[in-house]
Amino acid sequence: MKAVVYREPFSVEVSDVEDPSIQDPNDVVIRVTSTCICGSDLHMYEGRTAAESGIVFGHENMGVVEEVGPGVASVKKGDRVSMPFNVACGFCKNCLNNKTGFCLTVNPGFAGGAYGYVSMGPYTGGQAEYLRVPFADFNCLQLPKGDEFENDFAMLADIFPTGYHAAVLAGVSPGETVAVYGGGPVGLMAAYSSLLRGASKVWVVDRVASRLQLAEDMGAIPVDFSKADAAEQIKEQTGGEGSDKGIDAVGYQATVAEGEEQPASVLNSLIETVRPTGRLGVVGLYLPADPGAPDENSAEGKLLFNVGKYFEKGLAMGSGQADVKSYNRYLRDLIVAGRAKPSFVVSKELPLAEAPDAYQRFDKREDGYSKVVLKPGLAA
Amino acid sequence: MKAVVYREPFSVEVSDVEDPSIQDPNDVVIRVTSTCICGSDLHMYEGRTAAESGIVFGHENMGVVEEVGPGVASVKKGDRVSMPFNVACGFCKNCLNNKTGFCLTVNPGFAGGAYGYVSMGPYTGGQAEYLRVPFADFNCLQLPKGDEFENDFAMLADIFPTGYHAAVLAGVSPGETVAVYGGGPVGLMAAYSSLLRGASKVWVVDRVASRLQLAEDMGAIPVDFSKADAAEQIKEQTGGEGSDKGIDAVGYQATVAEGEEQPASVLNSLIETVRPTGRLGVVGLYLPADPGAPDENSAEGKLLFNVGKYFEKGLAMGSGQADVKSYNRYLRDLIVAGRAKPSFVVSKELPLAEAPDAYQRFDKREDGYSKVVLKPGLAA
Amino acid sequence: MKAVVYREPFSVEVSDVEDPSIQDPNDVVIRVTSTCICGSDLHMYEGRTAAESGIVFGHENMGVVEEVGPGVASVKKGDRVSMPFNVACGFCKNCLNNKTGFCLTVNPGFAGGAYGYVSMGPYTGGQAEYLRVPFADFNCLQLPKGDEFENDFAMLADIFPTGYHAAVLAGVSPGETVAVYGGGPVGLMAAYSSLLRGASKVWVVDRVASRLQLAEDMGAIPVDFSKADAAEQIKEQTGGEGSDKGIDAVGYQATVAEGEEQPASVLNSLIETVRPTGRLGVVGLYLPADPGAPDENSAEGKLLFNVGKYFEKGLAMGSGQADVKSYNRYLRDLIVAGRAKPSFVVSKELPLAEAPDAYQRFDKREDGYSKVVLKPGLAA
Amino acid sequence: MKAVVYREPFSVEVSDVEDPSIQDPNDVVIRVTSTCICGSDLHMYEGRTAAESGIVFGHENMGVVEEVGPGVASVKKGDRVSMPFNVACGFCKNCLNNKTGFCLTVNPGFAGGAYGYVSMGPYTGGQAEYLRVPFADFNCLQLPKGDEFENDFAMLADIFPTGYHAAVLAGVSPGETVAVYGGGPVGLMAAYSSLLRGASKVWVVDRVASRLQLAEDMGAIPVDFSKADAAEQIKEQTGGEGSDKGIDAVGYQATVAEGEEQPASVLNSLIETVRPTGRLGVVGLYLPADPGAPDENSAEGKLLFNVGKYFEKGLAMGSGQADVKSYNRYLRDLIVAGRAKPSFVVSKELPLAEAPDAYQRFDKREDGYSKVVLKPGLAA
Repeated sequence: MKAVVYREPFSVEVSDVEDPSIQDPNDVVIRVTSTCICGSDLHMYEGRTAAESGIVFGHENMGVVEEVGPGVASVKKGDRVSMPFNVACGFCKNCLNNKTGFCLTVNPGFAGGAYGYVSMGPYTGGQAEYLRVPFADFNCLQLPKGDEFENDFAMLADIFPTGYHAAVLAGVSPGETVAVYGGGPVGLMAAYSSLLRGASKVWVVDRVASRLQLAEDMGAIPVDFSKADAAEQIKEQTGGEGSDKGIDAVGYQATVAEGEEQPASVLNSLIETVRPTGRLGVVGLYLPADPGAPDENSAEGKLLFNVGKYFEKGLAMGSGQADVKSYNRYLRDLIVAGRAKPSFVVSKELPLAEAPDAYQRFDKREDGYSKVVLKPGLAA
Repeated sequence: MKAVVYREPFSVEVSDVEDPSIQDPNDVVIRVTSTCICGSDLHMYEGRTAAESGIVFGHENMGVVEEVGPGVASVKKGDRVSMPFNVACGFCKNCLNNKTGFCLTVNPGFAGGAYGYVSMGPYTGGQAEYLRVPFADFNCLQLPKGDEFENDFAMLADIFPTGYHAAVLAGVSPGETVAVYGGGPVGLMAAYSSLLRGASKVWVVDRVASRLQLAEDMGAIPVDFSKADAAEQIKEQTGGEGSDKGIDAVGYQATVAEGEEQPASVLNSLIETVRPTGRLGVVGLYLPADPGAPDENSAEGKLLFNVGKYFEKGLAMGSGQADVKSYNRYLRDLIVAGRAKPSFVVSKELPLAEAPDAYQRFDKREDGYSKVVLKPGLAA
Repeated sequence: MKAVVYREPFSVEVSDVEDPSIQDPNDVVIRVTSTCICGSDLHMYEGRTAAESGIVFGHENMGVVEEVGPGVASVKKGDRVSMPFNVACGFCKNCLNNKTGFCLTVNPGFAGGAYGYVSMGPYTGGQAEYLRVPFADFNCLQLPKGDEFENDFAMLADIFPTGYHAAVLAGVSPGETVAVYGGGPVGLMAAYSSLLRGASKVWVVDRVASRLQLAEDMGAIPVDFSKADAAEQIKEQTGGEGSDKGIDAVGYQATVAEGEEQPASVLNSLIETVRPTGRLGVVGLYLPADPGAPDENSAEGKLLFNVGKYFEKGLAMGSGQADVKSYNRYLRDLIVAGRAKPSFVVSKELPLAEAPDAYQRFDKREDGYSKVVLKPGLAA
Repeated sequence: MKAVVYREPFSVEVSDVEDPSIQDPNDVVIRVTSTCICGSDLHMYEGRTAAESGIVFGHENMGVVEEVGPGVASVKKGDRVSMPFNVACGFCKNCLNNKTGFCLTVNPGFAGGAYGYVSMGPYTGGQAEYLRVPFADFNCLQLPKGDEFENDFAMLADIFPTGYHAAVLAGVSPGETVAVYGGGPVGLMAAYSSLLRGASKVWVVDRVASRLQLAEDMGAIPVDFSKADAAEQIKEQTGGEGSDKGIDAVGYQATVAEGEEQPASVLNSLIETVRPTGRLGVVGLYLPADPGAPDENSAEGKLLFNVGKYFEKGLAMGSGQADVKSYNRYLRDLIVAGRAKPSFVVSKELPLAEAPDAYQRFDKREDGYSKVVLKPGLAA
């Protein structure tokens, strides 16, 4: 089959790879109908990870079941399904606690697995025609058959639940105010999810005009941090108090100005932005090892974090990759009921063959490539 | 009346000060029966704060009501009461959210007030014969009359609820394992509270033998970090996994060896100690400004925090001073029912007149002065 | 001043009564700007309670502060405020648990107090020009000055928080489905609140066409139980499964057909309607004594409740009058942010003088009288 | 193999039945080491259910793994394991919500399955030498190898988690008071669990002296309801207020006097016993159909429930069979840590061959037969 294969930094190609097959009684094989390119794929693409040549990318997958292992009880050939980017077993201690992003079974020696990602276990990515899904009863989310809502459902594998997870980590509840740092697809989903959870006001902080426009269109209040300090702008709009909750959808590659990375800047801005007793949800990525970091401590994931202020204000902060399985059913139901339409972030649909070009343009932040959905079934 | 008055660094004296009186219809005046010296009093005592000469110390107070303002509805002359160290109004946004440690009313311009503490509002301390209590209906906790459980109840103003708060911030629930860093009175109370909440195993990390002994006597597992890395010791006892939850009862004055302060060392050890998906409760003090800090960043409360590892493990961390009012009723009921006996940490009872000597010895960590209860009614 | 005074069954009049005044240091006096007639006022109006002649009605009150007692700290003359229908102290055990509907202070011998209601304490109602508010710091919710959102804010005293309380009792969370029995103002607010909390689908069960129309206009799915069994209709729309959650906004005066009361019929229908593991929120009124009940057991509040089915399905059920204070701040903020507009249920604004006529018409369920807001400042 | 087989009312025998085998890739077969007789087995034994001749009893099972299906990932031959009495799949909607007692997969057409129980699916009971366990990765709880804590672990399949579930449904938290109706094994486990969760005072209501004695020995306060009304006794001990929480560990066969069943009497007593705002946890069994009921309504599970008082007091009530899987890991850890010892309720160990005699004596409530653990490995 055809698949998007990583070759070397700044180079992927669409090659023939071996077809996936049932390896365990609990496996199914999926014909992929939609699979997205994710910002986190760029870490590998840019060569800032240990990813080796030959890895097939793709962790935001959905499709139709083609083959079913003999131990699978609930998934049938022909079912339309979405898979969380996290591969999980469903029975380890963490899965039982709904912490499926930290499964102890699927990636021995590490808490958590994923498709098509370096160090996340032996699971080939879904930017391909077919995909093997282990522990299929647990990992497949049933979708209504047909092709309605395809791009909305395509958001269920990662970014919609990841944005929602941020809102859960921050404990967003009805009537509260929320400051979201980062207006990329995940930040927009975090803001959107906060509104779905009943937030009264949501700010989205970025400096890219198109992102701020999308945020405003969706009901959030745009804050351009290149114009003035974001925390100050939000305090001004809250009588000096700050927001109730804060979300980091940026991570360690935070820049304070064009090209100038300051890895802790978003975290410390959030500490300024939220009011005493506030809570933070951090889904932007931080790494324990970053060879490209601006300094030695950052290279080990140690950042100058404003602990003094954090403590004085009595803040709390949850973090980590989303436990997609905990949310995707509910978000699916909101889509089906017409109450959520996350596909508003999709900027383009492309056949698999155009993936190499799309990666290149996305990496350069070209307009129209902020959220690409690959369609393996589309003629190139 | 007599009161413990701060004069200059390393010097307090027992002097005559003006008797407190009803200043607002919601005030009461208390005759103090027990008032403890707290580790946090030493920050002022050592001259590491902006505390000025003349301030009356004492935020861990209990006593008997002597005088009652005309607006007070539920507190009567003769009632025996305990007061949270936090002064709170009961009706601001934070008090309504049970965040009474961050009251927005009692100390204008800052979230939170306390008795006898620099920058915490105009509330004279209780290391004295009498104490004025504002918003008395809200701030007084009723105790059974008489003198039973006096030293247990004396723990209700601060350290028992503060230890309990740590367990709440860490989300300690039945069957879980908890690592507590710090075996001083607050750390012991955090460990004790974790056991009361049903923890299966609790470790107390310290290097002072007498503290480790107290921890063991009370049902915890002692970990001497001067013998070997604490995180490693705890991992060894959990099959390499780490504890479910972690508590910081040390704060910014953490030392890695005699006299060598490393302000972030306990936080980063906790990140190592707890397992992925774990939660931390931080009640050890961190400050946004610390003139005595070992380096410039620490002086502003910015510490090299292992954000990368924290995120990878998907940790969460709650922090801040305890909202005593949220817990003291329940802890009182456990004392009265005979199911909690926090006075096991009390090392000595002394008359008010001996406070200057007690401060000096406590500051030197002399044996027997780890938790002193002053008894203003005791003849010197 | 003028006030709506109960005279005898089916008769209220607007009479001169004594002006309220500051009786306690913590009181304020309010000039009433809006005060609603509530379905629960009809219980007294119809003579089905122990209410005696002379009682001033009105528990859904808002207005502007005219006079302030010397113990009040945060409320100032000229402030625009809303008062929960529950009178509460803010410092008793139940208020501290946010159960302000069950205050132990304000109505000695009973858990809970209210304005202008039989057996709910000595608090004169607000269908009048002025109103005394006790424990004003706790009971007054600050509103933006002016007259914007007046009718929306008028819903904050009772029905909006009561509807919201139903959704909280049922544990409505994002993506879930909810069946609301009763399409009167409280039922509509419960459905509206469920949607604000992110429900995917909400059904409103009634048989009055105008109510079902309002429900549909607001985003709910109307279910006419006079056409077919409501539980069956909802099961059909959920693949036979039933809804996740259920709300009773009807209470003991449930009728299965015109005029035929069956007090347990809504509760038992809900047990059929929700799926196993579901949760019910009951805010429709049930009474321990009802002289007008259809049978002896009902007269004592004992109803034939389908406990067997309830247990088999593993259901849970929360009940009781709303703790308005727990919700009104957040709901206010949603109104101010333009994200909630509860005034859609208001059917008419009238001057105080027209109250007697309005009661009569409301009691007859005349069109246009389903939710009347009295405006004491309006010329008759 | 040998197994306890139901023949006809009041008659079981130990017979040869077919050995269980791997039927699905996710199955394991267990050699049973301990399996308890449960009060709920008596419903079938007494012929009050639809159980047919030939059914093998036993849902409280533990043992050692003998054979492992090819789809099983984490369970190995030789592992010592405990199985929840609920059979569950781990991936349906209810299992994902930790509601494993209401699994939608294992017993088509009904929410919930169990071993060896009428209408609970095709799962043969474990009062036998061997047992087939489906979905083994999910249903097997790992235990330390060997035979330590055998009888404590034997309580993990049902009654310890069921008692704990009652405390969870009632929301028992530290410092609260709890009234438990029923001093049989489940009631004792509910009281014990409440204390483990930090309750300050727990009452156990019964009239059998030996049960009340066990309750007292374990730290609860015995209440003999044959001496005086239980609710009144508990109110007297709480200053007239009532307990914070209440637990029903009796169910529909509640008797108010020797032999006189009043199915709703415990529920209505609980409504009297708990204070306003209280919560009830109901794990005593109620059935939607009971042919032996004292009246027609009870026969359909409809009981005269004091809804009026329930609502006036603002109570909440959770119910249903325990989701054992949600608790058994934590309770196991408390046993291993030496902090829980639930085997105090075990009255006798017997070889399988003595099961017929044990059933007979247990059914007659003979002393020493209140909790029998059968040991299939024990020579008769």
